[in-house]
Amino acid sequence: MRDVDHSASGPWHTGIGESIDGVSTMSFANLLQDVRTRVDADLAKWLAPKVIGAAAISAPVGHAAEAVRDLSLRGGKRMRAALVAVGYEAYATPGSSWEICVPAMVANELLQTYLLIHDDWMDDDDTRRGGPSTHVVLRKQWDNRALGDAGAILAGDLACGWAQEALLQSEVAPERVLRAARAFARIQSTVVCGQIAEMTADPDALTPSVETVHDLKTSSYTVTGPLLVGAALAGGMDEQALTRFGRPLGVAFQLRDDLLGTFGDPSVTGKPIWNDVRQRKRTGLVAELLRDASGLEVWKRGEVEPIVRAMESGAKARVEARVTELLAEARTALAAMTTITEAGRIHLEGAVSALGERAS
Amino acid sequence: MRDVDHSASGPWHTGIGESIDGVSTMSFANLLQDVRTRVDADLAKWLAPKVIGAAAISAPVGHAAEAVRDLSLRGGKRMRAALVAVGYEAYATPGSSWEICVPAMVANELLQTYLLIHDDWMDDDDTRRGGPSTHVVLRKQWDNRALGDAGAILAGDLACGWAQEALLQSEVAPERVLRAARAFARIQSTVVCGQIAEMTADPDALTPSVETVHDLKTSSYTVTGPLLVGAALAGGMDEQALTRFGRPLGVAFQLRDDLLGTFGDPSVTGKPIWNDVRQRKRTGLVAELLRDASGLEVWKRGEVEPIVRAMESGAKARVEARVTELLAEARTALAAMTTITEAGRIHLEGAVSALGERAS
Repeated sequence: MRDVDHSASGPWHTGIGESIDGVSTMSFANLLQDVRTRVDADLAKWLAPKVIGAAAISAPVGHAAEAVRDLSLRGGKRMRAALVAVGYEAYATPGSSWEICVPAMVANELLQTYLLIHDDWMDDDDTRRGGPSTHVVLRKQWDNRALGDAGAILAGDLACGWAQEALLQSEVAPERVLRAARAFARIQSTVVCGQIAEMTADPDALTPSVETVHDLKTSSYTVTGPLLVGAALAGGMDEQALTRFGRPLGVAFQLRDDLLGTFGDPSVTGKPIWNDVRQRKRTGLVAELLRDASGLEVWKRGEVEPIVRAMESGAKARVEARVTELLAEARTALAAMTTITEAGRIHLEGAVSALGERAS
Repeated sequence: MRDVDHSASGPWHTGIGESIDGVSTMSFANLLQDVRTRVDADLAKWLAPKVIGAAAISAPVGHAAEAVRDLSLRGGKRMRAALVAVGYEAYATPGSSWEICVPAMVANELLQTYLLIHDDWMDDDDTRRGGPSTHVVLRKQWDNRALGDAGAILAGDLACGWAQEALLQSEVAPERVLRAARAFARIQSTVVCGQIAEMTADPDALTPSVETVHDLKTSSYTVTGPLLVGAALAGGMDEQALTRFGRPLGVAFQLRDDLLGTFGDPSVTGKPIWNDVRQRKRTGLVAELLRDASGLEVWKRGEVEPIVRAMESGAKARVEARVTELLAEARTALAAMTTITEAGRIHLEGAVSALGERAS
């Protein structure tokens, strides 16, 4: 799984069409900044007593808790937390503030920590957010590879339990918290199914489709889920409409990630170029490449540079067109949402460009 | 982690004292039987559409879901589910039935499935409940060891998400479901801390104490947690009282497990004898053995039979005495619970003997 915590200070790609304007883009960027400041502070505050409690059991339990804390606090764009705020705002009564969502934001960030820890172990990735991944930390700390691996799985499980605890501390009416908790549980089941689907998919075949996997892995977890959690906390019940908006935006977000992974500027994205191809990752570009016989042949031969060149000749443009199409679909879904607040609409529009048209 | 799903048809050890009588023991055994029939049926019903949905994504996602289902349905005494029923009964208004707790019972069983799957992978245990453990199933099904291991971690994660979904479907007042969900989330965080503490503990040292680890690993997960979930669903708020009851009972249950693992009758327990000693498991017997210098010496030498003989000469009796003491503590806590129903009291008494005085 990609950690999509790119720097919030990167340039926002704009000028896509008349439906986006600088106001919603800037407004969303400001919201993201405010949310990040608040969530960074509250994550630290929430986790501090947990780490103390864990360390009181034994030093190694403390180490596992510290690893959860360190990864949670190290970077993280807090995009999901911002989308909780946007979902809340879209259904909130005048005068109420997204700050009531802070426990749910902390929960979404801890859910991400949990998934990243398990994912890094599965992918044998040594680094995450500019530091060592959790299994690397614990292997070294406990001077034992198998113990460090088991510790990382348990550290992830701990973050998962804490995520639920945080969400359930939301201070709104019980039926709202309950609805948010249901949406939150579905994020977990959905993203995990997506991860299994991706991990086990034949890299040379088109089923399950890349978009199906992107939808399962990304749409619920990154877009629809956080929006639904926020909306539920505000008393909003418009699940279908938010899903119609979130599904295409989530897939577009992941396809944009695929494009940036192969054709992005490493100095802007912070990611090594062509890694996806090298790792034979089943991206949207691969799906397009495999649609014709010559592309399939190049892909199967496995040489990186020829694959990238072949992608450049058609697959790239088709994926870009598909992103544009999906973003238009999200905007159409947004236009059909007639009962949301104006602040919510502006930020949902801003989210479309932030997620779908980013350059980093 | 031990799977404590011993056969419910095993003999119940009775005659411990005047506070236990055949009525509560038989009554609890009958409840356990009823709960088991119901939970087995409802687990199957609940999981069927989940497995179909997973298989519709791709065959391997279906395999992972089937693995969760198969382990969940294969055996399982449903002791935790029964304790949800007991917690409910203790605070229920007349005429209400524990059947309202079925989603929460399904949730507790799925939580166990999740923990067992991760645990078997960590302990490299090939069998569980008389069949292959999940990582063994998926390694074989996908013909790839690393993929099977990652699949098992994700299958566990899926069971965890489903457990939350099931609990949140409970059809009682939202504030009750919410309270139950909070207790349920704490079970996960607590048992995971206990697992880390156990896994990383120095087998030759007494800190953290074996009882601390037993409390974290077992009391919340096996006794207090399920009771709190059931009580919450009935509107009961007596968290401190239930914890005072569940903590000593959970530790006694685990110490009884330690005794049975070394001194039990394998034809009754179904477990190979002396395995704990062979695996250098940090049990209550080891803790007692290490209290004197000669015991420590025998333990460090590592020969199995001399260790068992040394345990027999003093540690065994001391652990048995401690179990008796803890059960008395649980009964005192029970006697102090003046606001619970009579049906609840009878079943809580039955739970003390079922968990603390079992021979299998």
